[in-house]
Amino acid sequence: MKTAKVAIVGASGYSGEELVRLLLNHPHAELTAVTSRQYAGQTLAQVFPRFAHHPGARRLHFSEPRADLLAKQAQVVFLALPHGVAAEFAVPLLQLGCQVIDLSADFRVKSAAVYKEFYAHEHPAPDLLAQAVYGLPEIYRAQIKTASLVASPGCYPTSILLALIPLLKAGLVQTSGIIADSLSGVSGAGRKAETDYLFVECNESVRPYGLPRHRHLSEIEQELSLAAGHQVVLQFTPHLIPVNRGILTTLYLSPAQKPAHAALSEWGEKIAATYQAAYGSEPFVRLLEGKALPDTKNVVGTNVIEIAWRLDPRTGRLIVISAEDNLVKGASGQAVQSLNLMCGWPEIAGLM
Amino acid sequence: MKTAKVAIVGASGYSGEELVRLLLNHPHAELTAVTSRQYAGQTLAQVFPRFAHHPGARRLHFSEPRADLLAKQAQVVFLALPHGVAAEFAVPLLQLGCQVIDLSADFRVKSAAVYKEFYAHEHPAPDLLAQAVYGLPEIYRAQIKTASLVASPGCYPTSILLALIPLLKAGLVQTSGIIADSLSGVSGAGRKAETDYLFVECNESVRPYGLPRHRHLSEIEQELSLAAGHQVVLQFTPHLIPVNRGILTTLYLSPAQKPAHAALSEWGEKIAATYQAAYGSEPFVRLLEGKALPDTKNVVGTNVIEIAWRLDPRTGRLIVISAEDNLVKGASGQAVQSLNLMCGWPEIAGLM
Amino acid sequence: MKTAKVAIVGASGYSGEELVRLLLNHPHAELTAVTSRQYAGQTLAQVFPRFAHHPGARRLHFSEPRADLLAKQAQVVFLALPHGVAAEFAVPLLQLGCQVIDLSADFRVKSAAVYKEFYAHEHPAPDLLAQAVYGLPEIYRAQIKTASLVASPGCYPTSILLALIPLLKAGLVQTSGIIADSLSGVSGAGRKAETDYLFVECNESVRPYGLPRHRHLSEIEQELSLAAGHQVVLQFTPHLIPVNRGILTTLYLSPAQKPAHAALSEWGEKIAATYQAAYGSEPFVRLLEGKALPDTKNVVGTNVIEIAWRLDPRTGRLIVISAEDNLVKGASGQAVQSLNLMCGWPEIAGLM
Amino acid sequence: MKTAKVAIVGASGYSGEELVRLLLNHPHAELTAVTSRQYAGQTLAQVFPRFAHHPGARRLHFSEPRADLLAKQAQVVFLALPHGVAAEFAVPLLQLGCQVIDLSADFRVKSAAVYKEFYAHEHPAPDLLAQAVYGLPEIYRAQIKTASLVASPGCYPTSILLALIPLLKAGLVQTSGIIADSLSGVSGAGRKAETDYLFVECNESVRPYGLPRHRHLSEIEQELSLAAGHQVVLQFTPHLIPVNRGILTTLYLSPAQKPAHAALSEWGEKIAATYQAAYGSEPFVRLLEGKALPDTKNVVGTNVIEIAWRLDPRTGRLIVISAEDNLVKGASGQAVQSLNLMCGWPEIAGLM
Repeated sequence: MKTAKVAIVGASGYSGEELVRLLLNHPHAELTAVTSRQYAGQTLAQVFPRFAHHPGARRLHFSEPRADLLAKQAQVVFLALPHGVAAEFAVPLLQLGCQVIDLSADFRVKSAAVYKEFYAHEHPAPDLLAQAVYGLPEIYRAQIKTASLVASPGCYPTSILLALIPLLKAGLVQTSGIIADSLSGVSGAGRKAETDYLFVECNESVRPYGLPRHRHLSEIEQELSLAAGHQVVLQFTPHLIPVNRGILTTLYLSPAQKPAHAALSEWGEKIAATYQAAYGSEPFVRLLEGKALPDTKNVVGTNVIEIAWRLDPRTGRLIVISAEDNLVKGASGQAVQSLNLMCGWPEIAGLM
Repeated sequence: MKTAKVAIVGASGYSGEELVRLLLNHPHAELTAVTSRQYAGQTLAQVFPRFAHHPGARRLHFSEPRADLLAKQAQVVFLALPHGVAAEFAVPLLQLGCQVIDLSADFRVKSAAVYKEFYAHEHPAPDLLAQAVYGLPEIYRAQIKTASLVASPGCYPTSILLALIPLLKAGLVQTSGIIADSLSGVSGAGRKAETDYLFVECNESVRPYGLPRHRHLSEIEQELSLAAGHQVVLQFTPHLIPVNRGILTTLYLSPAQKPAHAALSEWGEKIAATYQAAYGSEPFVRLLEGKALPDTKNVVGTNVIEIAWRLDPRTGRLIVISAEDNLVKGASGQAVQSLNLMCGWPEIAGLM
Repeated sequence: MKTAKVAIVGASGYSGEELVRLLLNHPHAELTAVTSRQYAGQTLAQVFPRFAHHPGARRLHFSEPRADLLAKQAQVVFLALPHGVAAEFAVPLLQLGCQVIDLSADFRVKSAAVYKEFYAHEHPAPDLLAQAVYGLPEIYRAQIKTASLVASPGCYPTSILLALIPLLKAGLVQTSGIIADSLSGVSGAGRKAETDYLFVECNESVRPYGLPRHRHLSEIEQELSLAAGHQVVLQFTPHLIPVNRGILTTLYLSPAQKPAHAALSEWGEKIAATYQAAYGSEPFVRLLEGKALPDTKNVVGTNVIEIAWRLDPRTGRLIVISAEDNLVKGASGQAVQSLNLMCGWPEIAGLM
Repeated sequence: MKTAKVAIVGASGYSGEELVRLLLNHPHAELTAVTSRQYAGQTLAQVFPRFAHHPGARRLHFSEPRADLLAKQAQVVFLALPHGVAAEFAVPLLQLGCQVIDLSADFRVKSAAVYKEFYAHEHPAPDLLAQAVYGLPEIYRAQIKTASLVASPGCYPTSILLALIPLLKAGLVQTSGIIADSLSGVSGAGRKAETDYLFVECNESVRPYGLPRHRHLSEIEQELSLAAGHQVVLQFTPHLIPVNRGILTTLYLSPAQKPAHAALSEWGEKIAATYQAAYGSEPFVRLLEGKALPDTKNVVGTNVIEIAWRLDPRTGRLIVISAEDNLVKGASGQAVQSLNLMCGWPEIAGLM
């Protein structure tokens, strides 16, 4: 199988580090460049001792990020940068003929106006928005295969969208009044030296944050609306939980038509069939059966998202729960899944 | 001030241990007996090394639980026992003239039929249900003062009820469609030797459980219905979080009358005034102001419940969040608060 | 009993916060001033929500640190500042007639030369070294009572010195070859926004640091040498452990005279008698008996240090283990213990 | 390359589960049987949801352990059983022509008398002791290649032996007075439903245990003595630390001949050269350089052991620190390393 040279811009954060882990061990990709202003000149092995036993980690040095050099070193470039900054690299890299997989939010929202509303600055490269593909392989597999610019979704969006989109497309749930209550591990905050994320401030602490309007709502609602066929507004509450990795999302949904109590079981059958049709053969979506419920510890370190659901006969509601590793299926693993599609490799390459 | 002799039946679990801590240091109560079949004969200091520096802990021995002896040793008896078992002690203790503060669920539900529905066995002492007072001091202060049997509420009910009851009484929120999403520390599961609660199974794990019908719904819905004036059905999802202590509950509420967008601020003023009226002078309810949001680490070890709320103009919903220590305000601290009321002591005695 | 006004300079770190907790609830001390450049103008309740239910926390505002003002507001001033900075405040405060309890290392070492060797800068106030009393109440109780400047020891020194000094004074162990292996919770690193202390970097991590020459060796060896009557050199290895609070120290000791195998039990009797004589009536030292071994969870939140020991017949060595809360007995609780002594209050006031 | 069929007896504990993970993904081994009395009849996917996305985990059912059946299903059988029980399976499996890799302590000690002394019962199969090979590949690679019975070492022994054996063989350290202070994650205690290992009892707790004579001393001292050429007695203190996985061991060593202060650097050069000669080309031993110190988070999930060392000029001692994942290099990964050797596969197969 043909191999491809790949590079990571901004490889020193948690998502970047996870990309390094996945790409060092990828059977078809060759990691040829990693950039970091802070660590330029040091090897991957020096900065990330956990990779030091991989020959590639001892060989590869961090460099200053320069688009012109990266374009010579790699065919596909991952951007693991803050929003706003990512676009600055995407523009020249695309012009120089690279394919770009961007893990920031810069190209996830189709509308420059919505971007400005949620991110509080002008979109840095609005001309590219039309060509960007939202990098959720289970939904946009065909488009990703031919994309030059993939906007790889983040952790909250993935945990919510994969659980909801099939139900919305099938018209099985009301599109108003949807609630997503999410619990995130601390790595979701990034490797930032802020007191809020110190061990002592997070350990033995459970807390909500960012209420009531989280930035990721912009892309979540965009994709939910596309699935529903009309505008969807979401209630979303993120919480910070003292685990390193993992997101667990609990979704509260009502039936599209209020089913009589007798019709609840029928609704259940449709839900089961819809999920089965959507994900029955997906390599990275695990539909739980029987009494099993999602648990982040069963997905951490993997590219798998677990989904389970329950009907509550007392309230007539549907509860859907999903669990994923925020750094893998919620970030870097999903980005590699897109890489595999773009390069024509098996979708699971380097992810099992 | 007059002192009173108190005893704890079932003092070896987490709630029992927390009662020991509070009562050893209580200025007016004298802890005269603690029972435990497992530890009978050993001192408190031997079983709980953390109390070993307290002279009382070195003096007091665990004994086998016998109602006749307890009635001679104490005027007020705390029952920190599993449901079903607690009633077996409550009956003779009350007959022998003791006052009883029961931390189990046995006397929290007014209806023996509802009890049977949720706990799957006949109520062990239905004749006592009428006289039991639900031990939520902020709501039933007057009744607790003269009670002989207090059914002290558990952790989930407290975190939900204190946040909701004032809003329901004021008619400010819809009584249908209420959702409570709760996150609990592992001590909520008790000191049970089960693999599910081993360190390795809980650490780095986030998971829901007991979906969709938790036993505590019986008492929660009873009290919500009393506040609302009609039957309330609650959607409730508990999750297990890797912290020792703490419960954080996020509540999703809709306005009683759909307020126009302009009316949202008016709704907010009413909510603020309602909470202020209900809890402005409560010693153990902290209404957060400004940007502050509840965090379990700010209440752990205290009898305080934190409450904050946000209106979401995008969805028109009210989000209320509460945080408490499940073993203090959610169990033993609240029980001591009732003790203080029953004995005519300052309500905060031994709790600051 | 006479009360005293007290102040805390540098009240926003973990030790300062713990001082606030203890002094807000102290029966005889009145906290009249807390300083913090970062939080000047805010109340204690705003900066530390966990104290917000204490009336004093809602009343008291952080102020800029100014010695002249502090001297008017308080009779005793606690310095919870970095070394080097503490001395800058100690000098004027003492001149203005205050008593000072310094939690930094500035006045713990008697020799300005040793200070310079370990802290890499000139001692900022060498003239005060002679009058400073090392604030270990179990060892220097009489001197603390009349001190105007107490150098309150830190967490590692306390955990090592209290375990060793009685054995050294009694001549029961060899003074060469002593090893102290210590495990510290992350709050020991202070509330510093450094990536090394982020949740994700500390959780699921166990690591040594600062090998082989930790700064606290200067004061530890000074005090060990005073107890032994000659120079003692210590092998000391600190490790960082993912708990918020707590230090556990394991000490490896050899008999002063190599006892024959038969004499081991005799050595044991002397050790037991020595510890009993030293600490049998100490309120904050808990000598464990039987099979009990120290566990940080049994001392966290208290001013107690637990000590246990074992003779190993296979190696002829004595193993001593101590556990304490690094922020209480290892910092702020111990400082309040000194305050109690200096003010003629019961030594346990505000610490039980 | 030739493949081999392998089986795991006792696959439901933590070591067994880790073996499952490694063998499901092994390029040359085919996992054909897993046994568990508790889970017989269920699939791997049902018992371990985290493996449910692997087709093999959905296919393979747990069975009752029966040596006769296992011998038909597999060429190599792993025993992940308690000591005492393991030997009961090893005897018939060897007779039936299987190769056995035993993860229990049953065949690690060469002397049945020493086994009885430390394990308090007669050795269950003393005739097999002579043929068992101690499964530390870095030390016994040649013997493992031709072994039929490998006694795969546990977590503490591996962490101590790999750090010490080269120094002892080179005669660089005193063989008396060696101290090993070890910190272990809770999975080292196994998946046992005991209150001591509940989340609440381990979280926010640091404690020693099993003092002063841990069972593993028998095998550790045996191997140290073989390396030294004479009997070595070790001081060993294990501690329980609130992490899921990982062991960190700190070793305290003195020079074989007391080197003059000037000779310390010479000693250091010899140590560096000795480690380099021993492990410079070992795939799973990482000698840290520069300022780097071992950290369990850098080895968790890998088969790597990290080793670093420091000379302390103040005490003249050598401090060696090692870190490993107790379930991988300290158990199942090391067992797979032996499997690779026994089957003639690359030693790193399935372990990178």
